Amino acid sequence: MPDDLTLPLQPGQLLARGVARHLTSHGFACLEEFVPERGKRVDVMGLGPKGELWVVECKSSRADFMSDSKWEGYLDWCDRYFWAVDENFPTELLPDGTGLIIADAYDAEIIRMSPEDKLAAARRKVIIQKFGRVAALRLNLLRDPDLGRFS
Amino acid sequence: MPDDLTLPLQPGQLLARGVARHLTSHGFACLEEFVPERGKRVDVMGLGPKGELWVVECKSSRADFMSDSKWEGYLDWCDRYFWAVDENFPTELLPDGTGLIIADAYDAEIIRMSPEDKLAAARRKVIIQKFGRVAALRLNLLRDPDLGRFS
Repeated sequence: MPDDLTLPLQPGQLLARGVARHLTSHGFACLEEFVPERGKRVDVMGLGPKGELWVVECKSSRADFMSDSKWEGYLDWCDRYFWAVDENFPTELLPDGTGLIIADAYDAEIIRMSPEDKLAAARRKVIIQKFGRVAALRLNLLRDPDLGRFS
Repeated sequence: MPDDLTLPLQPGQLLARGVARHLTSHGFACLEEFVPERGKRVDVMGLGPKGELWVVECKSSRADFMSDSKWEGYLDWCDRYFWAVDENFPTELLPDGTGLIIADAYDAEIIRMSPEDKLAAARRKVIIQKFGRVAALRLNLLRDPDLGRFS
């Protein structure tokens, strides 16, 4: 869990931090390691000012990317899908029709905008509600560690 | 801001912590000092597993309650409205038609359930989206204090 501040961040988590900072500057609120449904865990889910949902998968290396067989399943849980990689990543590997973000631990930049494939209203509602509940619970667990006994 | 862990919690914030713990045990996610619209700030907003929105105002004393002229405005932003007070509070002061929670810093109990006055779908959607964005932003600010430069 990235919420455990005592552990050093992994390479993908460092990219996620830069991504979150950049999306925040665009007015998005971000939640890392969000599980939209059982068996799926997205690196960064961004919730925009108009309810837009963006998924960003962070890949720290070619091997990290090649071992990911799940990413197409994430397309069903967002309006736009991006990869976030560092500047040395071989971006020609990345599939067409996806967005591209170049990131490091400190910031990021959207290089190629993802095409939009709008979620149905019912699914958007479900995701936003879950996003809010997970974010608030994690926030409260950080502020009040004893809360774990109540959840 | 209650997110500043270096400040001692005020009496109302201690009640809010107990309330949040109790609502969490009922499957709610809670956000403190939530602003549903400009000029309104509720002590605790709870978001339930089915999208229920509960507002809890925490009153640490008779004077704290008597000086509150805004509470009726909060009824428009929730499905159920509660007061949270400590066991020494003169509960006969509290208006009919509201819920009652007896709380301390460690836990709380719902003594009288609030009647339900369901929000319209459009307003619920707006509140839940704002709830999620505020919770995620506060969480990220705790985990990454430098994020403040980006928001």
